[in-house]
Amino acid sequence: MKILSAILLAAAFTVSAMPAAAAESAAPVAIAIHAGAGTIKRENLDAARESEIQAKLEEAVRAGHQLLVSGGSSLDAVTRAVTILEDSPLFNAGRGAVFNAAGRNEMDASIMDGRTLNAGAVAAVHNIRNPILLARRVMTDSAHVMLIGEGAETFAREQGIAFEEDEWFRTEYRWQQLQQARERETARLDAQPEHWLSTVGAVALDSGGNLAAATSTGGMTNKRWGRVGDSPLIGAGNYAGNDSCAVSATGHGEYFIRATVARDICARVQFKGESLAEATRAVVMEQLSEMGASGGVIAMDPQGKIALTFNTAGMYRASIGTDGSVFIGIYRDD
Amino acid sequence: MKILSAILLAAAFTVSAMPAAAAESAAPVAIAIHAGAGTIKRENLDAARESEIQAKLEEAVRAGHQLLVSGGSSLDAVTRAVTILEDSPLFNAGRGAVFNAAGRNEMDASIMDGRTLNAGAVAAVHNIRNPILLARRVMTDSAHVMLIGEGAETFAREQGIAFEEDEWFRTEYRWQQLQQARERETARLDAQPEHWLSTVGAVALDSGGNLAAATSTGGMTNKRWGRVGDSPLIGAGNYAGNDSCAVSATGHGEYFIRATVARDICARVQFKGESLAEATRAVVMEQLSEMGASGGVIAMDPQGKIALTFNTAGMYRASIGTDGSVFIGIYRDD
Repeated sequence: MKILSAILLAAAFTVSAMPAAAAESAAPVAIAIHAGAGTIKRENLDAARESEIQAKLEEAVRAGHQLLVSGGSSLDAVTRAVTILEDSPLFNAGRGAVFNAAGRNEMDASIMDGRTLNAGAVAAVHNIRNPILLARRVMTDSAHVMLIGEGAETFAREQGIAFEEDEWFRTEYRWQQLQQARERETARLDAQPEHWLSTVGAVALDSGGNLAAATSTGGMTNKRWGRVGDSPLIGAGNYAGNDSCAVSATGHGEYFIRATVARDICARVQFKGESLAEATRAVVMEQLSEMGASGGVIAMDPQGKIALTFNTAGMYRASIGTDGSVFIGIYRDD
Repeated sequence: MKILSAILLAAAFTVSAMPAAAAESAAPVAIAIHAGAGTIKRENLDAARESEIQAKLEEAVRAGHQLLVSGGSSLDAVTRAVTILEDSPLFNAGRGAVFNAAGRNEMDASIMDGRTLNAGAVAAVHNIRNPILLARRVMTDSAHVMLIGEGAETFAREQGIAFEEDEWFRTEYRWQQLQQARERETARLDAQPEHWLSTVGAVALDSGGNLAAATSTGGMTNKRWGRVGDSPLIGAGNYAGNDSCAVSATGHGEYFIRATVARDICARVQFKGESLAEATRAVVMEQLSEMGASGGVIAMDPQGKIALTFNTAGMYRASIGTDGSVFIGIYRDD
């Protein structure tokens, strides 16, 4: 027993000490995440906050990747990464979500399994600690794809999903954004684009060759009328299909819905034979830009190739490719 | 002046007396509508109800077509046709909508303009007489695409949209369906497929060459948890783009969301060069059938070609093609 333990310990040490790439088997794994896009410029972000954001992005992408390397599913990897981003007050999802016009945190999320095209989504939910976990539960434990509002919260209670008090979600930073928006009496999208675009998301490829995508958001500061953006809409802010690709989007949600951004990128790959880079460029840099829509996407094809494409000054993003190379970026020139 | 009036009168008379086909100018117009698909068999439908349904379908399709012939937009034509179907207690949309688990009529609708890709949608709204008119108002008078629940109703009030009391929507037929569903303690989709699939919708091409699509539904009898189906989701139950096609769907909504049915049909036309017939067949008869999903679509391409494609025994449907030919159908062999 002692010898066996020693061997196991040695094996464990060897694996963890190896670079990520070498730890992989023949089947490639990869992950990419985002935490929003907008007019993120070096002059607007102090060094402390920049480091904090980079560290959280790295924590999330490595946690998801670790699951993939140890044989976990892409669904688990994107769920794990998004949960970490939701739990961070830095981003507009879960804790730290923006406030709606009624002064509440009203959140949307969706998840999709590229192997089966199963999907789950929730919109306009309150007090759900991790909306992505609720979206996943909708996928796995209901006959439905999309649940909204109080009904979705009832389902969450029945499922034992974790709730938090309002205080958990509240950050002074987001509260002040609401006060500013109220003063402007507007939920205008171009008011503070560096803030409202900070949806979070992840895409991943697991060793079984399966893609998955997850997206979570607090939506738009000062939003009214039960406004729903692209994040919880399959084919708009989120999509995964093993035959095509996986996409999670962040940006001006209304345009992303109209352009069915996530599905269109994958449809171009699937039906037109475009590469992932060509497809994301056509949709984000050409179509969305022509529509006047700001934002970006992270995308992954069935070979684990990654595209991090945005038409804004910056996008919080990170990835670990099939070769194990780690990338963390904020600005365009990162 | 008298001579001019006489000439105008003569011209007006000539146009209205001509068959629809001849009344068209060089620019073709066309319209198609549906009011649900399912296990609609001759033995399940008595002659009186059959006639009633046929008459309402004909009224709706002719009303939409009349607008097109007189130079109206495809948006106006699909809105008009769907409004007529919503106002009829025969179909599961507006008046006559099914009841949710709480015993309320909870409705979804969406509309899309193929020229601009503008879109509007509402989900889980109550007491709105014509949900399609509210969806259109979201498109034209808000900065948003999708509004849900009480928030959408607040927007409706601000916009002067017509509300009706619960009694307006209530039909004994739908109420009994709810009681039966409650007895079975289920909202199972295969329980009474001839009922729950009766979403309504329309697609049209106007003389300006613009496509539009509109879809409206009461959803699923006994639905809980704020369940939203495909009807209000752009790219799932509804889509229109002048570069590709227009689609309105009816069927097992969860599968239609996962397969992004409406956008996928149009993406096949746009990116793969498939004909409308090939694209609807691939998605409805192959992909959806393989997924075990029942339903159908009406679709129209930029030349006004029409596809009425369903994998169920029947689909309530009607169309007037670019040649002015009128078709009304219920069963597969119609």
